[in-house]
Amino acid sequence: MSGRTVGYAALREYTKKVLKALGYPEIQADSTAEVLVEADARDVPSHGVARLDFYEKNMKGGFSSPSAEPSVVHETPLSVVIDGNGGVGPHVSRIAMDKCMAKAGKSGAGFAAVRNSNHFGMSGLWAEKAAARDQIGMAFTNTRICSIPTFGCQRILGTNPMCFAIPQEGKIPFMLDMATTTVAHGKIEVYERRGLDMPLGWVVDEAGKGTGDTKEFQKLFWSSCPDGGHLFLGGEGEELGGHKGYGLGLLVDLLCAGLSIGKWSLHTFETRGRSSGIAHFFGAVSLNLFGEAAEIKRHVASILEEVRNSHKAEGRDRIYIHGEKEAEAREKALRAGIELDEETVKLLDGYGARFGIPRLS
Amino acid sequence: MSGRTVGYAALREYTKKVLKALGYPEIQADSTAEVLVEADARDVPSHGVARLDFYEKNMKGGFSSPSAEPSVVHETPLSVVIDGNGGVGPHVSRIAMDKCMAKAGKSGAGFAAVRNSNHFGMSGLWAEKAAARDQIGMAFTNTRICSIPTFGCQRILGTNPMCFAIPQEGKIPFMLDMATTTVAHGKIEVYERRGLDMPLGWVVDEAGKGTGDTKEFQKLFWSSCPDGGHLFLGGEGEELGGHKGYGLGLLVDLLCAGLSIGKWSLHTFETRGRSSGIAHFFGAVSLNLFGEAAEIKRHVASILEEVRNSHKAEGRDRIYIHGEKEAEAREKALRAGIELDEETVKLLDGYGARFGIPRLS
Repeated sequence: MSGRTVGYAALREYTKKVLKALGYPEIQADSTAEVLVEADARDVPSHGVARLDFYEKNMKGGFSSPSAEPSVVHETPLSVVIDGNGGVGPHVSRIAMDKCMAKAGKSGAGFAAVRNSNHFGMSGLWAEKAAARDQIGMAFTNTRICSIPTFGCQRILGTNPMCFAIPQEGKIPFMLDMATTTVAHGKIEVYERRGLDMPLGWVVDEAGKGTGDTKEFQKLFWSSCPDGGHLFLGGEGEELGGHKGYGLGLLVDLLCAGLSIGKWSLHTFETRGRSSGIAHFFGAVSLNLFGEAAEIKRHVASILEEVRNSHKAEGRDRIYIHGEKEAEAREKALRAGIELDEETVKLLDGYGARFGIPRLS
Repeated sequence: MSGRTVGYAALREYTKKVLKALGYPEIQADSTAEVLVEADARDVPSHGVARLDFYEKNMKGGFSSPSAEPSVVHETPLSVVIDGNGGVGPHVSRIAMDKCMAKAGKSGAGFAAVRNSNHFGMSGLWAEKAAARDQIGMAFTNTRICSIPTFGCQRILGTNPMCFAIPQEGKIPFMLDMATTTVAHGKIEVYERRGLDMPLGWVVDEAGKGTGDTKEFQKLFWSSCPDGGHLFLGGEGEELGGHKGYGLGLLVDLLCAGLSIGKWSLHTFETRGRSSGIAHFFGAVSLNLFGEAAEIKRHVASILEEVRNSHKAEGRDRIYIHGEKEAEAREKALRAGIELDEETVKLLDGYGARFGIPRLS
């Protein structure tokens, strides 16, 4: 058994078949397959098809109701509050983001606060849709608990990612798509597999003290102890700005759960029933609010070009703009296929055998 | 000569007199005195009355035109683009933020992109005004260059602070007011005065390598060499997420300078004339867009209370919500006076002697 390189279209079709076999209706399966395969294509496998396993567990655990349709709780020309009713994250998110963009197209801005949804994939996939329409796109979500506030030691917040996408002339949008924690958990798993210690600044132990011991941390993280977890951007304490990262993570929860009267990270995946309780926040703001969109996009492009051309650190030959790495990976994947690692291939082949889906090659 | 404790009202009056003597018109002097003294009251002296010196230098250097009035370049029911025409930062910002809040009150949301302004003080002072009206407040600004992008070594971005204020029931708003760099320069000056080395993660030298040598860094920072400078939140490289902090700093410049067709940090303080070219971005979004404001504020308060009550790290007895430290300092300052350090007292007494203003006690 080893990794395998597969075509983009074939992987989407295969993933959709698996999701349908798991009980997802047609449209939910389609939205979800797109979101998962897009992440793999962009070299963000932590949000890719390897998540099928997690999605299935959520269904079985009573945290996701694949055929549930979201309902509108509150709506104005600029805003909507949606109850996901435990439905599929990408399905609920597509409806919410479409509403934001339509409102921004008509009124100049649109915002959606969403409660009782589920994992929506990469934040950037939602924000970039707005950028393609000459709007500033925003997408935030809370997540299962894993992270701790400054001076705390209890896992009460999630990785709580945020994305802002700003269109520019002639190039892919500036797209800052970031977990507010220092790293996502997948990175720690890589260190565990390789038998490496983590750098200080990623996590703390049950006493709230920084640790680099990957094995011990993993034991703790998956134990019943509620303490010990991920640090936010800026790390432990205040010396390197950890209180700022914690503030960003908390901001995400207040926008997502606060505005939707939903569950914040601490209470997601708490009650088995229909929904994990994951909450999102989306926004779209038209560039036209600030003048001629084309002129603004040219100015944004000129700023980013000056950033690229600024002096490089010793041993470095490129300064990246956010979104470029993922866009270049996607281009390569569409041309040369998506590389799946051994474990993901095993997972997909297992689904194939279980549901009688022809092997993906 | 030593520090001195002075009353809030007396310090505001004194500061206003100094500004008027420097050539600020009545209303500009009043707005600016408020902004400076509020920062001192909140124990953020880096943005306090010690800045009078910087403000005077900006006038003399041809980077600020105290009696200039801002003009509206573009306006919609949801937005305004303002040219500050080199006017006083707090004066221009007050006009911009007032417009955002009025638009949010009427239409649900209001945004202002501002170019050719000047230093506007603490971001939080603008964002909290919206929070007091049951709106989410936002305030961003670019600044004089001091910071470098990931894999770069040239100072091309500023400290580029951002603030989000979200109102809650019964308490001061959640208020995340943060430089996107790891620290502001004032912190390095404190280390220099005390003869201390800096922790790694604050700055890099002219080759783009991390350094803790405060003396050498200060020499470099104030030399004509364009390289070496502050790191963004997350520090050097990508291991601790420095690319995320750099993304936040760049986001601030794109919102401020990009949307206003203004100057981004690299080109501020570049051309002597009327303006430093500093650009801001403000926003106000009404809670009513998402339902009943009172219900949302209660929910936000309940989330924040759970955060406060979560488990503390060993040796810690409190988890702070953003904005609390500053609010508590302000309460104390209003009661017991504002403590000014020796250098600030010297500066103020100097202005008093120069302009014949009675000594502040």
